[in-house]
Amino acid sequence: MCEILLEKKDMLEKKYGFNYTVVAISDIMKGSVYDKNGLDVAKILNLVKNGKKLDEYPTGIKGMDSLATIKETNANTIVEVTFTDVKTGEPALTHIKTALSTGKNVVSTNKGPVIKKALNLLDIADSNNVNYGFEGVVLAGTPVLNLAKYTLAGNIISGFKGILNGTTNYILTRMEEGMSYDSALKKAQELGYAEADPTGDVEGWDALGKVVILSNIVLGKKLSLEDVKREGITGISIDDIKKAKAEGKRWKLIGSAEVQTDGSVKAKVSPEKLSFSDPLAGVCEAVNALTYFTDELGPVTIIGPGAGRRETGFSLLIDLLEINRKSK
Amino acid sequence: MCEILLEKKDMLEKKYGFNYTVVAISDIMKGSVYDKNGLDVAKILNLVKNGKKLDEYPTGIKGMDSLATIKETNANTIVEVTFTDVKTGEPALTHIKTALSTGKNVVSTNKGPVIKKALNLLDIADSNNVNYGFEGVVLAGTPVLNLAKYTLAGNIISGFKGILNGTTNYILTRMEEGMSYDSALKKAQELGYAEADPTGDVEGWDALGKVVILSNIVLGKKLSLEDVKREGITGISIDDIKKAKAEGKRWKLIGSAEVQTDGSVKAKVSPEKLSFSDPLAGVCEAVNALTYFTDELGPVTIIGPGAGRRETGFSLLIDLLEINRKSK
Repeated sequence: MCEILLEKKDMLEKKYGFNYTVVAISDIMKGSVYDKNGLDVAKILNLVKNGKKLDEYPTGIKGMDSLATIKETNANTIVEVTFTDVKTGEPALTHIKTALSTGKNVVSTNKGPVIKKALNLLDIADSNNVNYGFEGVVLAGTPVLNLAKYTLAGNIISGFKGILNGTTNYILTRMEEGMSYDSALKKAQELGYAEADPTGDVEGWDALGKVVILSNIVLGKKLSLEDVKREGITGISIDDIKKAKAEGKRWKLIGSAEVQTDGSVKAKVSPEKLSFSDPLAGVCEAVNALTYFTDELGPVTIIGPGAGRRETGFSLLIDLLEINRKSK
Repeated sequence: MCEILLEKKDMLEKKYGFNYTVVAISDIMKGSVYDKNGLDVAKILNLVKNGKKLDEYPTGIKGMDSLATIKETNANTIVEVTFTDVKTGEPALTHIKTALSTGKNVVSTNKGPVIKKALNLLDIADSNNVNYGFEGVVLAGTPVLNLAKYTLAGNIISGFKGILNGTTNYILTRMEEGMSYDSALKKAQELGYAEADPTGDVEGWDALGKVVILSNIVLGKKLSLEDVKREGITGISIDDIKKAKAEGKRWKLIGSAEVQTDGSVKAKVSPEKLSFSDPLAGVCEAVNALTYFTDELGPVTIIGPGAGRRETGFSLLIDLLEINRKSK
């Protein structure tokens, strides 16, 4: 994120009238630094790359913790990028609530608070006349949330269906080519797609979080993790995949939700056999995709990256540019 | 368009704070009517449905031609929906220029003026502090232009590749199932996808116009129709399609452009054999799709309708909502 801001500073100013000054950085491992007149981001990146702490930055105030940084600095926007805890949402939830309540914009890629408290946090943002942007929590920098909110505005979106987890899609793509599940998983781990304990991905937990987020944000329904049926890909055998192939079909792990006629929402994560006329069937490798079902346009699908350090960092810029647009 | 505005009046007001009054309508066949206090749209739709002229509307001023309607009414936004002439851009070009120069916003689905003079018209809009929206000229209401401008903002887009014509994609889909070109074309004509003279679609002229528009608007390059190589689908035989199928591939009519290292742009319309790992390969029937090549996210693809009365009408609402957002 810092790298993108630095590399694109001129372009962002020229094309979008977007100016920024980074005044503070706080990290639980690397320490913190604050200078109300601004920090030299290039210098900081250099420090960190060389394994040094922020205390070694030549000027500024050191030692403020994250909450002090949020409350006591002159920042008008907080970039929240702590680790994700989907069970409690913490520590991000407190960070974000504090920032919004004290009249600061927040941009964040942290799924936890969005899963736990999205609508509540958006209300706090509204009543303090600030913004809470989290484009990156679903499909990284692929702009699915802004797509629904702005570019599809005027439609009624009655449901969605998507490939919301890149790791499982990568594994299924390899299995489609004949590789065993175990080898495909190992390869995904080597490439950094899957973690040592792959449960979060392969059992559908990651996709589940995204279904909850999309149901809340896009469909406006209050769903929790417990409300969604979940099944991962571990039950799919090479044989199942071959059989599907013979029928001209492909297995994909699909997260979906559909508003019912009584206003309730039916949501689930499960493997589905798609025919090739479904745009999601052609989405291979670690790529993600999402189809919205709209009243005016029918199905509209967007396909793009669902993870990646730079791609996720970029999502923060989408949110910052949106705040910048609104402030004009 | 009028139907959508009417049906969604409450929703548009509640959700987007969007209010409107239709003050004038002018049509070369059906006549014109103007009332500075607003017209009853439902009543007008009823008149037209019963084959009557606008002169039969009970109140208001009759007989103003289109230019008088643009210049002399109290409208602040003009909805331009005359027929398309890609060679001259007229009469829409004059309508739009007149409206923008006199400080009125324009929303339009007319390709002609965009192909001929997009950048010039956008300049006029800028210097008069108004907007010229034309989301519908490429992929109807599927928001490809707003996607590039807003939700992908911050990316450098170096090229695009798309299925930009629904008729030819419909024909290729039927041929893929074994139907002959002639039967598939006939079916497309029966369904209203293709015109009696199908040249515009099957020889790639329609896709060509869209490549020019996207090159100008999204890539910022000045291209004319003459600068783009064009080949349609009439040279593709059932045999070619069968051969491709055996290789696990599919023929699609692709419009594309790519910025070269010297800053020039290479653009073309031609049939391409896509492998199934290309998200465009799975796009069937009359559906359209577009892939943008971005520096931060890699390829991002959007798939949606490319034509249709309601879908195209809806694109005008996207533009109106965008103007509404900007005016807040």
